[in-house]
Amino acid sequence: MAFKRNFNIMARPVTLLGHLVAISIAVLILVWILHFREGVAFKSDNKLKILNLHVLLMVIGLILFGGQAIMAYKSIPAKKYWRKVVHLGLHAIALAAAIFGICMSFKFHHDIQLTNLVSLHSWFGLITVCLYGLQWVVGFFTYFFPGAESRRRASLMPWHVYFGIFVFLMATCTAELGLLQSLDTWFLLGHTQENLIINFTGLLIFLYAATVVLTVILPPLY
Amino acid sequence: MAFKRNFNIMARPVTLLGHLVAISIAVLILVWILHFREGVAFKSDNKLKILNLHVLLMVIGLILFGGQAIMAYKSIPAKKYWRKVVHLGLHAIALAAAIFGICMSFKFHHDIQLTNLVSLHSWFGLITVCLYGLQWVVGFFTYFFPGAESRRRASLMPWHVYFGIFVFLMATCTAELGLLQSLDTWFLLGHTQENLIINFTGLLIFLYAATVVLTVILPPLY
Repeated sequence: MAFKRNFNIMARPVTLLGHLVAISIAVLILVWILHFREGVAFKSDNKLKILNLHVLLMVIGLILFGGQAIMAYKSIPAKKYWRKVVHLGLHAIALAAAIFGICMSFKFHHDIQLTNLVSLHSWFGLITVCLYGLQWVVGFFTYFFPGAESRRRASLMPWHVYFGIFVFLMATCTAELGLLQSLDTWFLLGHTQENLIINFTGLLIFLYAATVVLTVILPPLY
Repeated sequence: MAFKRNFNIMARPVTLLGHLVAISIAVLILVWILHFREGVAFKSDNKLKILNLHVLLMVIGLILFGGQAIMAYKSIPAKKYWRKVVHLGLHAIALAAAIFGICMSFKFHHDIQLTNLVSLHSWFGLITVCLYGLQWVVGFFTYFFPGAESRRRASLMPWHVYFGIFVFLMATCTAELGLLQSLDTWFLLGHTQENLIINFTGLLIFLYAATVVLTVILPPLY
């Protein structure tokens, strides 16, 4: 494909950048939740710890693992079958984390008696996870087990890639909304350390998404 | 390109969907600002009117016109030169609206004495508009006047397309953050009419972005 060759760059170095950005995001999120907030918990009198668990599962589970799953075809030096298994497995982990994470959000709302599904973040989040699950199930039956006939697989591939990227970018956008929402009183805050960490995390998550999408477009090294 | 053909759909019907979604967004934003908020103004004692002008310029100017500029190559039945002129012109309008819109945001902050550049929305917005301007200038000198040599144009095209989409999606994400931020007290609100309008506008803006990106990938009708 001429379009691919014209980038004059292979996917491998971009996947390395993706890994570095993913590690940076994980570090920032952990510093934020463990140092500036009060850690995570499944059950606690401090209800904010339940919300923190939601944040951790969504960012590290859905965004970072989801991105690694997409990059797997370009970042793993193995046969196609094993790359597919890793792709499927990482997406399954991401999806499980997302479902568990959403439950934590409902639990938090329930415990402090807030109305569910009010904010734009919650609408985006629920739609994203439904589409993510749908995409996983369709992908599993089309490309893994039992698998469609070869011609059908090929003709569906562009749509699988397009919807996959679409859902991943929707997850990214949801994460950004969640980060902004985590500071209810943003307009009263100045440039506090916590605010700076949240904003830099937001920028890095967007950079991560852009990197992941670029690896999909670029040709593999081998 | 096999990848393109495999979608089994041409760009034209998708651009029509894009136009319809754009009109819906414009209607929702106007209803929101004129009915639920108090309209727009450049100077007013009601400072919120200045913020409303910011919203209008950003959504209708940057997002809708910016998206139309990207789709111009697939939606306009004219020669390549004229499609390029429309692409360049619509992007110039979008950029001008964005710069004016950002000024309105600073003016609003100044008038009510809020600190600038605190929220994630403001960080995303400023970076987006800087990158948008850079992309426009580089695009102008590479593809319009004086124009680079043909081989260089072709080799830069994938990057021009990738960065263009990247900046447009960043603008989309900024718009979503702005919509969420417009309800400072989101967690106290229930399913009010205004909240529903904001959330549906957010979903439609994301659908618009997905449609615009799809028209870039799909082959033209002619």
